[in-house]
Formats: sequence, structure tokens, C-alpha cells
Amino acid sequence: MDDPSPHFADALIERVRHLGHPLCVGLDPHLERIPEIFLPRPAEPGDPRCAAAVEDFLNAVVDRLQGRVALVKPQIALFEQLGWRGLKVLESVAARARGHGLIVLLDAKRGDIASSAEGYARAYLDPRSALAADALTVNPLLGLDTLDPYLRHVRESGRGIFVLVRTSNPGAEEFQDRPREAPLFERLAGALAEISAGCRGGRTGWSSLGVVVGANRPEQAQRVREILPHSLFLVPGFGAQGGGAGDALRGFVSGPRGREGGVVNSSRGVLFPAAGESGDAAAWEAAFDSALEAAVSQLGEAVSG
Amino acid sequence: MDDPSPHFADALIERVRHLGHPLCVGLDPHLERIPEIFLPRPAEPGDPRCAAAVEDFLNAVVDRLQGRVALVKPQIALFEQLGWRGLKVLESVAARARGHGLIVLLDAKRGDIASSAEGYARAYLDPRSALAADALTVNPLLGLDTLDPYLRHVRESGRGIFVLVRTSNPGAEEFQDRPREAPLFERLAGALAEISAGCRGGRTGWSSLGVVVGANRPEQAQRVREILPHSLFLVPGFGAQGGGAGDALRGFVSGPRGREGGVVNSSRGVLFPAAGESGDAAAWEAAFDSALEAAVSQLGEAVSG
Repeated sequence: MDDPSPHFADALIERVRHLGHPLCVGLDPHLERIPEIFLPRPAEPGDPRCAAAVEDFLNAVVDRLQGRVALVKPQIALFEQLGWRGLKVLESVAARARGHGLIVLLDAKRGDIASSAEGYARAYLDPRSALAADALTVNPLLGLDTLDPYLRHVRESGRGIFVLVRTSNPGAEEFQDRPREAPLFERLAGALAEISAGCRGGRTGWSSLGVVVGANRPEQAQRVREILPHSLFLVPGFGAQGGGAGDALRGFVSGPRGREGGVVNSSRGVLFPAAGESGDAAAWEAAFDSALEAAVSQLGEAVSG
Repeated sequence: MDDPSPHFADALIERVRHLGHPLCVGLDPHLERIPEIFLPRPAEPGDPRCAAAVEDFLNAVVDRLQGRVALVKPQIALFEQLGWRGLKVLESVAARARGHGLIVLLDAKRGDIASSAEGYARAYLDPRSALAADALTVNPLLGLDTLDPYLRHVRESGRGIFVLVRTSNPGAEEFQDRPREAPLFERLAGALAEISAGCRGGRTGWSSLGVVVGANRPEQAQRVREILPHSLFLVPGFGAQGGGAGDALRGFVSGPRGREGGVVNSSRGVLFPAAGESGDAAAWEAAFDSALEAAVSQLGEAVSG
């Protein structure tokens, strides 16, 4: 990728043509499958020796792949299970692979709203990041607009992305295949109903299988509540994203201490109050407390009102 | 959560009832928004000082939240943008929050097939993990079976999950709302067509916006190829998952050096050959090379055949 105007697909396909095959080798360090010459047993993910063994194993793998395949695909979940040490190993293995001329496609299946997607794009596609890969797998469920931060790096830094369209696992057909009469969110909710009911608590009756339901479409929140009477809602979009407390609580129901049935999230509105941008520590503390109290009292009133 | 039989929803809702409001505070450390008293400017995500500043800032935030909200929601993307140091900060901030009696809901929106989901579940819900949270957000697009590893911790360790059903971002309606006549995977592919065409390389004509298309449904691969003639395919499911080379290449087209149009991934089949499970380093190398060569030659033949 030292091309003056690099382009992921060009570089990859030229390499594939040169090698004569399109094999991509997945770097999935399942601990229970790593040869004992690299990782003596027993081995628990929390043991720091695991990270060192994964590094030794994958270094040996990558050395053997040099010049023989076009690309490798680390599965980040299996690095994350090792905690921060796992990400450090990923950084080092990816650098070694790229040093060998291998293209690195990071299989992370990230998908999130714009500002979080920006964080993922910075982490995994920005050339200045130590963890930057040549390409990244992304999940489109949240909408095409959420792909923009990745697409900027596709266009400006010659990176690539792979969007999930039809995955290969047994359950993929559940949502991805069949024609739908109902909107997908109702299908999703309906499909979760039985599992949700099976995860109810003995004391409150609420289920530990919750759902994310935005505050910006209160009528949809009510519909999801009808379908999933026991699931807690995690309601984003309160405060900074424009949703009011009343809308945020639309899927809530009467409980022993007012309306209940979920939690309402605020990130920017509390964490970064406008008044807290300058000044000393005391000013920040005051601004923070004030924003927090405002959010708490709005919701407290809406719950009891 | 010191209850002898802990249950996430019970513990959360009882705390919410006690406090009288359902506010969840998102811990989203956007670097450009962190007060200068914590992080002097300029600050780049790659600078190790950023991680220390995020830790100081969030420690101060968490200290102020004690006893005032039921839970906090760290957005992991903004930790990941700091690399492995970011995960280390997340570990420490989450521990401090839990020490204060705050429930920690990790917003990671993870979604992947079973073995990778197992890694995420180990990382973020297993009580033995240093990064374990009380609950996790998950993406259901890959199917309900992919939720099983998380659900095991819901049932056995008293953890919770929140499944994305209708998110709050502007683009969410694209896939989540409207009734569909065509299968979702065709809709997804169709919606990507124009962007894909805009990301084509000048030398090969292939696009850097690729798609994940499983090898187990060749007729669907052909349909996606019709809709997205320029997108590279990342084809999982070759080898260990039972797909043959012919099926894996079903969405490929004629190129100057045989059939082309994507890459075919093998993880277990190459990384963990059955013959490499015991023996010395030389035996492992031989088994590895043999599995690799088998995969390479199968695909090489399919490409040129």
C-alpha cells in the first residue's frame, strides 16, 4: 500500500491476481485450540500468559503466510477476551503482518451511531492509529448514515470496508432473508418476546433481556412495549439528541414508585455541559452537578407525574 | 449485585425505584469535549497522555455520580480509539464505578457469529474478566442464535443485555422501520449500490466498499453480485463451515487471471489443522503448511477452472 494514491480494492485484487487465489486466512486465536507448544494447559483468558502465547502463535502463523496469501483477517473478539493485553497483541501482530506485505482486514463488525462510529473509524482505519488496518468489517443495521466515518477513510486514505449483508451462520436467515410484511423493528421485537419472558426477575418481573428503543419515535416505543411487556428499555436520545423526558418515558408503565420499565441515557448532556468548557475545577464541578441535577429532576418529575 | 442469586433487571429496577429516576449517564469520552483542566490542548488520540486524561476525567465524573444515578454506560468506541491503553482505562473506570455501587452497562453493540460472540461474552459479561460489566448492548442482525453466549451469562451470572431494535439515529428508519417486500439482504445490497460504484479503483474497477456474503447460499451470492457488480465479497464459511471452493466463488466473475471479485476466508481450517494438535514445533509447522497448501490449491483450482 505504498502507492502514492492507494486504493484498497486495487491493491488487494492485484495481489490476489499475482498469487492466483483469493484465500484470506482468519486469525482467530481460540485459546482452547492453540497448540500446546505455544500455550501449555490449563489456560484461562484472564491469565496474562495467554496474551504472550497468542502473540507467539500468531507471529509464527504470520511468518508462514508471508508471500503465500494476500491478506489475513484477525477476529477482534478473540483478542478482546484477553482484555487490554489482547489489543496490544493485535497491534503487534497486525504490524508484523503488514511488514510482511500482508493486507490486514480487521473483523470487528462494528456498527454504531455517528459519533461512536467516528471513534471506531479512528481506532481501526485512521492511518495515525497504531491499530489501523487496511480494511474493516462493519454492521449496517443502524443505517447507511452510520457508515460515513468509515467511508471517509475509504475515500481519503485508501482503506476498505466490508458491510454485513448476508452472513453465513445458521441463524442469519432469521432477519436477513425472508420477505417481511412488518417493519424489521417489530419483527426483531417479536422474535425476542419468548426469550425476554424467560429472563424475568423473581422480584420485579422485569426481564434482563432489554432492548434499545430510541426516544425520537414515541409511538414505536409503545408498539415495542406491547410486544415486549417485560423487557427493560435502554432509551438513548434524551437531552442532547432532542428528546424530552415525556417522550423518553413513553414505553414505561405504572410501577410501585411511579412509571418504570427501563433507563434513559444521556451522554453529552450530562458529561459535557456547555457551561463546563472553561474555568477551574470548581467551575467544572458546579457545571457538571447542575447539568446532572437538571436531567435527574426532569426525569424524576416525568416518572412521578 | 452481592445478592446470592443476582438478577440484573431486579437489581437495576430496585435501584431506580429507590433513586426515583431512571437516568443512565453515558460515559463517552470525546477528546475534543473533555474540559481543558483534565486534558490540555492540542490532543491527538494516539498521544498516551490522552488515556491518562480520560481516566482522570471519568474518575471525577464517577465520583460525582455515586449515590445519584443507578447506572453508567461507557461507550467503548471512544475507549478503543485510544488503543489498548483505552481498554485499560475502561477497566479501571468501570471498577471504580462498581466500587461506588453504580451499575455498569457497557455500550459495545457487539454482534457476531457464535464463536466470536463467545469471545465478546467472555470479555464483557464473564465475572472472571477484568472488563466484565453488569450488562452489554448487542446487535441482533446476525440472528437470534448469535445471542446465546450472552444469554448464558444472563441466566447463569445475573447479567443483562440490551438488543438493538430501533435505534435513535437519523438513518435508523432505513432498515429498521419500513415494511419490506424484498428480503433484507437484497435491500441492504441495493442500498449500497451507489456508494459501492463511487468507491471503484482506477486500475481494477473493483470497489473498496465490500460486502460479507456467506458461502452457504450460492444463489444469494449471485443475486448480490447482480445488485453490486463492483463490490468485493468477503466470503466466510469456506472449509470448516462446510462450504466448498466452487460455492465460495459463486459470486466471482471472469478477470484477467481467472475468476475474481473477492476473498474467501478460512479461519479454523488453516489456523487449527486437526493434525497440528500435538507434537513438536516441526510437526505443527508441517500440519499448518499442509492445511494452508490444501486451501490455497483448492481455491487456486476453482479460480482458474
